[in-house]
Amino acid sequence: MAQIAQETGVSITTVSKVLNNMPGVGNQTRERIQKVVERYDYVQNHAARHLRKGQSGLIDLVLMRLEGGYDVGIMHGIQDALKQSGHRLVVFATNEDESTERLWLRRLLDQSTDGVLLLLPYEQVGITDALLAQHIPFVAIGDRNEPTTAFPTIGSTIWLGGYTATEYLISLGHRRIGIITGPLHLMTSRARLAAYREAHERAGIPVDPALICEGNYLLGDGIQQTHSLLDLSDPPTAIFTGNDAQATGVYQALYQRNISIPDGISVIGFDDVMYTAQMAPPLTTIRQPLMEMGKMATHMLLNLINGQPLDSNHIELSTSLVIRNSCARPRNGSL
Amino acid sequence: MAQIAQETGVSITTVSKVLNNMPGVGNQTRERIQKVVERYDYVQNHAARHLRKGQSGLIDLVLMRLEGGYDVGIMHGIQDALKQSGHRLVVFATNEDESTERLWLRRLLDQSTDGVLLLLPYEQVGITDALLAQHIPFVAIGDRNEPTTAFPTIGSTIWLGGYTATEYLISLGHRRIGIITGPLHLMTSRARLAAYREAHERAGIPVDPALICEGNYLLGDGIQQTHSLLDLSDPPTAIFTGNDAQATGVYQALYQRNISIPDGISVIGFDDVMYTAQMAPPLTTIRQPLMEMGKMATHMLLNLINGQPLDSNHIELSTSLVIRNSCARPRNGSL
Repeated sequence: MAQIAQETGVSITTVSKVLNNMPGVGNQTRERIQKVVERYDYVQNHAARHLRKGQSGLIDLVLMRLEGGYDVGIMHGIQDALKQSGHRLVVFATNEDESTERLWLRRLLDQSTDGVLLLLPYEQVGITDALLAQHIPFVAIGDRNEPTTAFPTIGSTIWLGGYTATEYLISLGHRRIGIITGPLHLMTSRARLAAYREAHERAGIPVDPALICEGNYLLGDGIQQTHSLLDLSDPPTAIFTGNDAQATGVYQALYQRNISIPDGISVIGFDDVMYTAQMAPPLTTIRQPLMEMGKMATHMLLNLINGQPLDSNHIELSTSLVIRNSCARPRNGSL
Repeated sequence: MAQIAQETGVSITTVSKVLNNMPGVGNQTRERIQKVVERYDYVQNHAARHLRKGQSGLIDLVLMRLEGGYDVGIMHGIQDALKQSGHRLVVFATNEDESTERLWLRRLLDQSTDGVLLLLPYEQVGITDALLAQHIPFVAIGDRNEPTTAFPTIGSTIWLGGYTATEYLISLGHRRIGIITGPLHLMTSRARLAAYREAHERAGIPVDPALICEGNYLLGDGIQQTHSLLDLSDPPTAIFTGNDAQATGVYQALYQRNISIPDGISVIGFDDVMYTAQMAPPLTTIRQPLMEMGKMATHMLLNLINGQPLDSNHIELSTSLVIRNSCARPRNGSL
């Protein structure tokens, strides 16, 4: 204001009056000030500036649950990618509740966003359809219910990860490997199970259906299904879980039964979330490159927002085996 | 647009031209359409609507680190409180990096926000001063460097928590209790240590300075300082940590040395983050009501935004002892 006042030769009060559309300034003076103001591209805030360009300066992340594992890993990558772009990240968790999901969607359509990152394996109120209809750019990250090319998705090589995990346990001498899956209506849960079967087949080991337990990617499944597996007349010597939260549940159940890891039973997880190295013993797991997935999804979204074409509508980053201390040869195993 | 076209008796194209400030429409028609538009309170999006009222519809959360523990607990409470208010939550992590902190502050002042939640124990670039100068409402949550009444803060009864933890270990028969603190330039780290001393004094037990280790609230401190404590000629029989991340570090170090919990050494943490119940053994800890803290801070902020007075500028919610399985009597302890 001081600069504008100086340049136009009026008082700061006069400039303020013009900026706030208050009376008491002659038309000529008002016009003169407004011209300088326009040259300075004076806008009260960035929101207004974005609005002119039809942009809000916001990217929305919608996720199912704030759990502090998988989600936080991906958020680290998103934050990192947004450092340069100048966008702010709006975060919303639906908590798998249909009405909350609807609330988010209504608010998003009603308010404004430049683009959306979806961290929802499945949706209940047609979010992707609504985003497509409204031409709001979006990228889906991670597990999806069904494969699609209708919109950009980024994931990791889940099947290969499941294969690597099972093969590793087999290589240690395990022949009875329990598996605790995610919900089997999810593609990526089925991919892990298919890979588990494939690794068995390749090694010439028959799969006992009693060793396959369906869970929901929650700690609680890990506890409950481990107890079921241990109650079998011929219990497994190793357990492979769909994610690290389930693996911590397995730890919990084994602790309750006073069975040591890995001497009593081997455990292998999936994801490599932040706390896996801190578990006792540190968890051997299949790493999903969460940070890189978040980063790449954000770059894809920013390209879409800027009207640039994507190289590919679906990208999978590579999973890898992280060997720590939760797997060993079975007690009576032979190689 | 169709509705406006019908009501004013013009084509949709004409309405569109007026809405987008394009030429080719007579002044009279333009005015007529604009009146109807105004009546419909037609705005392209909520951002514009907020802008008119001088509101962005956004609340900013700035935090030091996205760790998946303490921070996620508080975010749950914030999200819950914002469900009703209609605000969206913008999240930003500074990662304790001065230039990133500066970037956030510049972006915040340049863009727009209705209010800020600070989850920063200390700041490097004068964030609170800048927010106060710009009259941006804000509430600080949790640990702060120094006590202040210059702006609203919400915390928990840290000193009492530290006292309760130490007293509990003493009641189990421990006489040599190691403590791994947070950085001692932080008020709340000093509060835990002061409470530890107080509980000792009250029980008539002298404090051995060799048992006091300063850390940085990180897992790594927990590991490192546990090894230092165990290398003492007269090592502790119990360890009290400044937060749960440090406690998981203690678990890790004890696992490396093949010392069992709680038979070999008792461990008590602080915070009660989501994963504590999942640790093996489940961690006994001092609970901070993280969700409630996030919720109450948000309610305070919304009151400030709406120009309502606060009942108090500083509120502390109560900590509590959560007894699980990581503490027991010392091996040679006498009661």
